Amino acid sequence: MRIPEESLRETVTAVFRKMGLDHEDAAIGADVLVSADLRGIETHGVSIRVSSYVKQYRDGILNPNPDWRIVRESPGTAAIDGDRGLGISLAPKAMRIAMNKARETGIGVVTMHNSGHIGPTGHHAMMCAAADMVGMCATCAVRRVLPTGGAEPRLGTNPIAIAAPARNEAPFLFDASTSAVAGGRIGLADEVGYKMAPGSVADKDGVPIMEEIHLSKDAEEGVDFYLLPLGGAREQGSHKGYGLGLMVEVLTSLLSGELPSMLNPSPMRKHYFAAYDISTFTDVETFKDNMDRTLRRLREARPAPGHDRVAYPGLTEYETEQDRRANGIPLRKDVVQWFDELCTELSVPRLRKM
Amino acid sequence: MRIPEESLRETVTAVFRKMGLDHEDAAIGADVLVSADLRGIETHGVSIRVSSYVKQYRDGILNPNPDWRIVRESPGTAAIDGDRGLGISLAPKAMRIAMNKARETGIGVVTMHNSGHIGPTGHHAMMCAAADMVGMCATCAVRRVLPTGGAEPRLGTNPIAIAAPARNEAPFLFDASTSAVAGGRIGLADEVGYKMAPGSVADKDGVPIMEEIHLSKDAEEGVDFYLLPLGGAREQGSHKGYGLGLMVEVLTSLLSGELPSMLNPSPMRKHYFAAYDISTFTDVETFKDNMDRTLRRLREARPAPGHDRVAYPGLTEYETEQDRRANGIPLRKDVVQWFDELCTELSVPRLRKM
Repeated sequence: MRIPEESLRETVTAVFRKMGLDHEDAAIGADVLVSADLRGIETHGVSIRVSSYVKQYRDGILNPNPDWRIVRESPGTAAIDGDRGLGISLAPKAMRIAMNKARETGIGVVTMHNSGHIGPTGHHAMMCAAADMVGMCATCAVRRVLPTGGAEPRLGTNPIAIAAPARNEAPFLFDASTSAVAGGRIGLADEVGYKMAPGSVADKDGVPIMEEIHLSKDAEEGVDFYLLPLGGAREQGSHKGYGLGLMVEVLTSLLSGELPSMLNPSPMRKHYFAAYDISTFTDVETFKDNMDRTLRRLREARPAPGHDRVAYPGLTEYETEQDRRANGIPLRKDVVQWFDELCTELSVPRLRKM
Repeated sequence: MRIPEESLRETVTAVFRKMGLDHEDAAIGADVLVSADLRGIETHGVSIRVSSYVKQYRDGILNPNPDWRIVRESPGTAAIDGDRGLGISLAPKAMRIAMNKARETGIGVVTMHNSGHIGPTGHHAMMCAAADMVGMCATCAVRRVLPTGGAEPRLGTNPIAIAAPARNEAPFLFDASTSAVAGGRIGLADEVGYKMAPGSVADKDGVPIMEEIHLSKDAEEGVDFYLLPLGGAREQGSHKGYGLGLMVEVLTSLLSGELPSMLNPSPMRKHYFAAYDISTFTDVETFKDNMDRTLRRLREARPAPGHDRVAYPGLTEYETEQDRRANGIPLRKDVVQWFDELCTELSVPRLRKM
């Protein structure tokens, strides 16, 4: 079932308004979710996330009217306390502050703690690419990834994103967890079925499972298995994924003056936003031309057997976005039904089918 | 055969002096190499690197008296042209500039192009940790890594490093290539033998080799195989290593206004240095206490079967450093012999054995 972008945006904004958010915050949050769906990032789109945010408001975990503020600041940096606000509404504001600082000092870095989940880190990094900047964003997630050689989870899936503008090519956008598989993929597994490649997860003793497994309904977080860091097993380089995951903890939790999830089980998250003003490093037009040449050179690489083409990070999502802007966003029937019930309950506009 | 740190430092400094470097540059370069050996990073130590740098001076590729300069600057950023200077001498100066900028604006970012190889990126990141800062460093290497799904190499091994100070624990230092295995490991393979884990390399058609292979003398770069990105095969997450490798190209080559090695075969490299003044984000003492708690929590995780303990990034190297400072740096007999011949030829002090 396909839903026009505008209808989804309108309904989700109205849902957030009913949770007590002002119009601006509600619209920003809806934009982050709908943008994820437009780009095909279902794990961070409306299907999974709206219900979890609504639950967090109803449980009093999220604060609909956060008095967020900068608690420490320098010309190029700021540290924000999000006052338990909706992460997807606060994160674009944090990145905007980083971008404004970058215009003054060449580079702006902002940390934020005490906020909810910020959605796909790539969304915030992309704000920079749209303004001829390089953007980076990282966030820490709940503890469920094993350190290399360990039998107890210590890290979150801790994704990191970078975006950079090109001229005629789609912008470069890399956005990925530092675990072998993203947490959201497992959330989806029950619904759509998901095969886990060898080296994606370990058993409860920390032993990497080196054959393909099919996730079942029983495979709840922490019940059957733990996630492995990017790389999989030690000999395949899992110490690199482990180190990258810890890098994200340092840039988000530690730099915020907070403890990582392995020592602090709070549902509130910590985040990192960086904006680079390209013009303070080199000529922007040269940069964009060089990006075009680089991305084209990747795209035109001879494919390996079994592959139609070589894509660069961001290309497939960009193509999906063009399609979905024109033809609507596909939602599963049960998701639309869930929305219909919620909309009736909250007296907000239902989704319009295409 | 073990060589005292001081003797190695003295000899390598003298070799660089004979290549035409002034005393300061020669001593800085020697320090980077000897520090790598102290930490057990043989791939970036004197055994392999001195001969390659000497060759680059003799071939006129490296410039012993570079007129390096800042070509673009803002309060928080600088772009350096290294004038074909020795990377291991210039990189610490570039990081020092980033650190000075961080003291003014909270965060300093410096790019450098047109210099040689900078040694282990972790060395430069560690300069920050020693000054109560968080440091990051990245560098691009020559083209030899396949993009996911591709049959032609496009990226370098492109390592990235981050360092952060703790109080009583060893500093956190993560330093790793974004390929499944580091390039230097393959350089060492001929000499010491090296088994490649499944998913480390692909054949010349880009098909990942999913069984363990033992590198032979014939396995020269680009002859038998190509390197795979961190993650290995597509289904194991190689698109993440590919994206991280491209992230490094953007932060080093593109931000320097240069083309990556896939479009520019120059032996000169491009680099990225970032320094974060922790005190502009949070209380430094809180940060260091939190780092201690975090690193201890990792170290004390229950090990998986087959592992003695869980280490955090930087711990093993720190322990190696303590041992080698006290007991000397082990060098293979043929390496010491090579040094003896070079020292005689250049009339500089030979290595003293312990």
